[in-house]
Amino acid sequence: MSHNTFGHLFRVTTWGESHGAALGCVVDGCPPGIRFTRDDIQAELDKRRPGQSRFVTQRREPDEVKVLSGFVMDDDGVTMITTGTPVSMLIENVDQRSKDYGEIARQYRPGHADYTYDMKYGIRDHRGGGRSSARETAARVAAGALARKVLPGMTVRGALISMGEKSIDRANWDWDFIGDAENPFFTPDRASVAVFADYLDGIRKAGSSVGAVIEIVAEGVPAGLGAPIYAKLDQDIASNVMSINAVKGVEIGNGFEAARITGEQNADEMRMGNDGKPIFLSNNAGGILGGISTGQAVIARFAVKPTSSILTPRQSIDVDGNNVDVMTKGRHDPCVGIRAVPIGEAMVACAIADHYLRHRGQTGRT
Amino acid sequence: MSHNTFGHLFRVTTWGESHGAALGCVVDGCPPGIRFTRDDIQAELDKRRPGQSRFVTQRREPDEVKVLSGFVMDDDGVTMITTGTPVSMLIENVDQRSKDYGEIARQYRPGHADYTYDMKYGIRDHRGGGRSSARETAARVAAGALARKVLPGMTVRGALISMGEKSIDRANWDWDFIGDAENPFFTPDRASVAVFADYLDGIRKAGSSVGAVIEIVAEGVPAGLGAPIYAKLDQDIASNVMSINAVKGVEIGNGFEAARITGEQNADEMRMGNDGKPIFLSNNAGGILGGISTGQAVIARFAVKPTSSILTPRQSIDVDGNNVDVMTKGRHDPCVGIRAVPIGEAMVACAIADHYLRHRGQTGRT
Amino acid sequence: MSHNTFGHLFRVTTWGESHGAALGCVVDGCPPGIRFTRDDIQAELDKRRPGQSRFVTQRREPDEVKVLSGFVMDDDGVTMITTGTPVSMLIENVDQRSKDYGEIARQYRPGHADYTYDMKYGIRDHRGGGRSSARETAARVAAGALARKVLPGMTVRGALISMGEKSIDRANWDWDFIGDAENPFFTPDRASVAVFADYLDGIRKAGSSVGAVIEIVAEGVPAGLGAPIYAKLDQDIASNVMSINAVKGVEIGNGFEAARITGEQNADEMRMGNDGKPIFLSNNAGGILGGISTGQAVIARFAVKPTSSILTPRQSIDVDGNNVDVMTKGRHDPCVGIRAVPIGEAMVACAIADHYLRHRGQTGRT
Amino acid sequence: MSHNTFGHLFRVTTWGESHGAALGCVVDGCPPGIRFTRDDIQAELDKRRPGQSRFVTQRREPDEVKVLSGFVMDDDGVTMITTGTPVSMLIENVDQRSKDYGEIARQYRPGHADYTYDMKYGIRDHRGGGRSSARETAARVAAGALARKVLPGMTVRGALISMGEKSIDRANWDWDFIGDAENPFFTPDRASVAVFADYLDGIRKAGSSVGAVIEIVAEGVPAGLGAPIYAKLDQDIASNVMSINAVKGVEIGNGFEAARITGEQNADEMRMGNDGKPIFLSNNAGGILGGISTGQAVIARFAVKPTSSILTPRQSIDVDGNNVDVMTKGRHDPCVGIRAVPIGEAMVACAIADHYLRHRGQTGRT
Repeated sequence: MSHNTFGHLFRVTTWGESHGAALGCVVDGCPPGIRFTRDDIQAELDKRRPGQSRFVTQRREPDEVKVLSGFVMDDDGVTMITTGTPVSMLIENVDQRSKDYGEIARQYRPGHADYTYDMKYGIRDHRGGGRSSARETAARVAAGALARKVLPGMTVRGALISMGEKSIDRANWDWDFIGDAENPFFTPDRASVAVFADYLDGIRKAGSSVGAVIEIVAEGVPAGLGAPIYAKLDQDIASNVMSINAVKGVEIGNGFEAARITGEQNADEMRMGNDGKPIFLSNNAGGILGGISTGQAVIARFAVKPTSSILTPRQSIDVDGNNVDVMTKGRHDPCVGIRAVPIGEAMVACAIADHYLRHRGQTGRT
Repeated sequence: MSHNTFGHLFRVTTWGESHGAALGCVVDGCPPGIRFTRDDIQAELDKRRPGQSRFVTQRREPDEVKVLSGFVMDDDGVTMITTGTPVSMLIENVDQRSKDYGEIARQYRPGHADYTYDMKYGIRDHRGGGRSSARETAARVAAGALARKVLPGMTVRGALISMGEKSIDRANWDWDFIGDAENPFFTPDRASVAVFADYLDGIRKAGSSVGAVIEIVAEGVPAGLGAPIYAKLDQDIASNVMSINAVKGVEIGNGFEAARITGEQNADEMRMGNDGKPIFLSNNAGGILGGISTGQAVIARFAVKPTSSILTPRQSIDVDGNNVDVMTKGRHDPCVGIRAVPIGEAMVACAIADHYLRHRGQTGRT
Repeated sequence: MSHNTFGHLFRVTTWGESHGAALGCVVDGCPPGIRFTRDDIQAELDKRRPGQSRFVTQRREPDEVKVLSGFVMDDDGVTMITTGTPVSMLIENVDQRSKDYGEIARQYRPGHADYTYDMKYGIRDHRGGGRSSARETAARVAAGALARKVLPGMTVRGALISMGEKSIDRANWDWDFIGDAENPFFTPDRASVAVFADYLDGIRKAGSSVGAVIEIVAEGVPAGLGAPIYAKLDQDIASNVMSINAVKGVEIGNGFEAARITGEQNADEMRMGNDGKPIFLSNNAGGILGGISTGQAVIARFAVKPTSSILTPRQSIDVDGNNVDVMTKGRHDPCVGIRAVPIGEAMVACAIADHYLRHRGQTGRT
Repeated sequence: MSHNTFGHLFRVTTWGESHGAALGCVVDGCPPGIRFTRDDIQAELDKRRPGQSRFVTQRREPDEVKVLSGFVMDDDGVTMITTGTPVSMLIENVDQRSKDYGEIARQYRPGHADYTYDMKYGIRDHRGGGRSSARETAARVAAGALARKVLPGMTVRGALISMGEKSIDRANWDWDFIGDAENPFFTPDRASVAVFADYLDGIRKAGSSVGAVIEIVAEGVPAGLGAPIYAKLDQDIASNVMSINAVKGVEIGNGFEAARITGEQNADEMRMGNDGKPIFLSNNAGGILGGISTGQAVIARFAVKPTSSILTPRQSIDVDGNNVDVMTKGRHDPCVGIRAVPIGEAMVACAIADHYLRHRGQTGRT
């Protein structure tokens, strides 16, 4: 990626920290004529908003998006129509409670980017993690809400499929359950809620944290997007997903499982369908063969590490080179992976939207 | 990635198929004054060359590199010194045995990019997989050989750590064994050779194939390379590695394992070392925290799927929409993952070299 | 340029129209540790602000910049210090008087981008020229104010050197006069003020408009920035300057004059100076030889066409294909070139700042 | 530009010096299905080849292009069809006569990039000007030959319109005369040949050199290519043209003349044509309004400085800081601008081809 910009034709630039006046993004290269409402964007932002259950940070972040440019308002006064010029979106920061950052400003928290920031820049905005704040992801989600509308008929959905040692039962997969009011985990398995809740309560009460695995599925992606090597669709999805804070691994389709099986087991066989389109008899490839979409569902998974803010004291050093014990105080997310679901969706949607435009540009095919 | 170019300051463009006159790469943005020999490049190419054991394809590919531009020759007549202008390297294709591609030209091989190529481009060079040929990776390896010299003191090494159902014993890890003449697998575990050999002979004789997992370790990487989010060092490594054919997953440090453990287990603690540099008490982060290098070894792993060229007939369709059974004939690699080791090294070296220059550019720090 | 982003390491993305809530820019890749104040930015913006004399549009645009991210505040509460993360700056739009755009919305004004917008996007924000509004240039000027601080010791100044048929006398060149309260033209020649004023009053009263030529001079640019071909410093300056509205030509050093003279007359001779640095005996090259800075002043000139908004009726067509006569009503700039001076300065400063970082990145030399 | 790569979707990377084994280019992002022959490329190269008259350098450069990748051969064995993968083209260097470069290696020739190269890189390939050699332009011309085929119906032609103090008479403009065997100057004015020949013979015999102005005209460019600000079509044309060696200025349409006239004189009026397309009553805009093509002919002009290699001794310094007199020996081009005509055509063709694909990508309109 080129600094804080990603995408080649559908380009997103994000900016902002948790402790400035605002954060936001500029979406450049959006096709003209796309119709959307502020609510379309806000609905996506609300999915990742903290404070919605006891399992996520209690910070108040209303995350109200303002759309500042790149559209004309339709006569209904609600529908915005993109003009093809940059769409700038902004979210004000409001919950910046004054806080004594004295220790954090001088100590390097293990697992955080404190030390590496200082090594890179020689200066660091320690408040709220600076640019590394989870809050920055709001900008991605806003951009993703537009990206979803670029490729007609595309749906991008995500689910949390494991949390620490606990996993869902894929046999219970129900996309409709994910938005359910009784589902604080983005799990597609109703039976997993009680298990995850018990498990995470234990983690939370112990002042600990735990990681998670998220799966993103994009349907309605036509065959032909991507490139054989370099600018592969799977590669750009991987890059986009890895650009999220705390992500340590990504896989496409059966991913690492592909390394354990044989060619007979792995390659997806094909038959001709009645509608003149091929039918794949399986989808180990995750909808991408040789870097190019097959027309099947595109499937990506990624691993989110446990947040490093925990209540147990940990050995570290400070900026002066002294050994210290570091302990996080106050609010924290016991599993940041939960809120990573809408973020992952957004990043996958952006990658596919970009490749849709690139494909149209190079080949004239749609 | 922007088409077939990767990197931002250290930029590599590759071109070529297995069945044209040649393939090659252009390395642009190389710092001036770097000293190298043709043998430095050739030695890396020889590592990935086929035909060196019964476990890899028997195609003859001498892969002799020519360096065409971007250097002045030192008085010794052997040492080339980069001038800062583009370094073009070319490898001629020689073993293009005339072959009846009749069926392959019309059938979509399961697991291959045949179908997706046609969906993308509407035209396809079916000979040798076209641009998707494993042969293209020679260009990456040549570029990587230069990348290794950009950051003084950096060493990038790789190892095959599992093949299908078989894995190495990490307790036996011996980097020196990897170049051993009796090691056809790039395994760091001497004891694994017999196991892998038996296993792969079985696979090969059955006309089957199997995947592999490769681990790349970069040492001598200073703290401070990368960026907190977007243009993260781990992200660009992931992107580079995912750009390789047949790679379906990538992870940094403990990767997907991080999703299964707690914050206490995951975060690497620090103490001050006697030399004034911090000591990390573990390296779960794989040398990268918050997208920026820590000074520890940078560790990436990736999964290579089994080659889809197998002798067992597979269900598929042809370009006219008929159901057909596809069977690969002739030579094939039972485990393409083996030769992926030097390729992975090259791609990681290129990512780090690029970030070294970017870091120097933005911050003036080195 | 890649959409609305320019620069490679010092990257600027701008967004916004004259008739939305705001406009702004994101400056990404700024070195950490640069100290600046809001007043530093505002002072540059004030230079290009309209309404300051009868010779420029009377629109009220206070252009108050807000700096939203990418800095920490120094203890003085005034000085901002860049952290190396994106600096987002925003300027609210306030003077959007309600206006009947009925005719303009349907007519293609000659010399304006109305027709071409519709041909490109099939949709158009006709209010205030949409993205083509001169107001957008405020974002460039804000970015340029930061760019000026990237290369220590660099000064970038500009001057209007001709307006329509009238030109300055270079013998009278006085940089100090440009900021003079009695100088509404950015002319460096005090004697030219009366001439330009008379001339432009005539143009203005006739409801006409006129073009201008601007010269930008950057001093304190070290030798070595740029590249021999492609990514030439002069090329990137030209590209930046040509990205400004209404610019139709650009030249470096003696520019088109170089095409009229001989090699003897053109090449700048050199002698060794007492300080161990070379002295150039002339500066026809405009401080750039073979795409690389020489250490002399970098000189660029550009032509701004007359604004196409004039009171004389002009033949045109409307969106339905009818022949119509178009006449601009209301406020207009008789010479938009006047306000182009600070804009040109900003664009040149950005180009040089970017090349300074690129040079440091590739070569490690400063 | 990003190093030695230009274009966003139609991307060209060039490499090579005059004194290596070869030079060439990689054209990436070419649409699939474009039919071309080696002769199509060679014909363009032959236009810029030296040694064709007494007015250009007598170096023998056969410039035989090899197309190495990115195509399949049609059944006729002559027609190549692009596959959408990178097209690599290579031209071997043959006329590298061994020569004593002793003085040139140590002296900084006025007007050349010798001094600036050393300031940038600290190392320099002094043979033949290194990367700054006019020979590099062969790679651009080869790429341009492909670019011409991307936009169906586009024609890009160029002409030399002035040489030093002499100019053509535009009333005599005849495109057909440019390829005439009796026209060594790419002039469109038959009457100018004798004038230019006399003038240039004088220059040549005096060991001097002279500059030139070239005009490029692209016809068949549909309305809608480009963008209002940034990524303007005129801007990218300017950038491409300024990337050529020795170019010191560029203008679009009436260019600098626009700065001298009024809005009434400058804006091109429109009427509705009988075919339902608008007719512009003039073309001061050079076919581009607000950065976007109008459908009229796109017109660009650029100034080429006189070559700095002249027989008259010139004051300079050497690498050790001594004052020296520099005198060029041997062959030289009295007017490098002549051969710049096909180069300018190629660069304009590349810019338009790129914008055609970008426009199609973003808007889906063609």
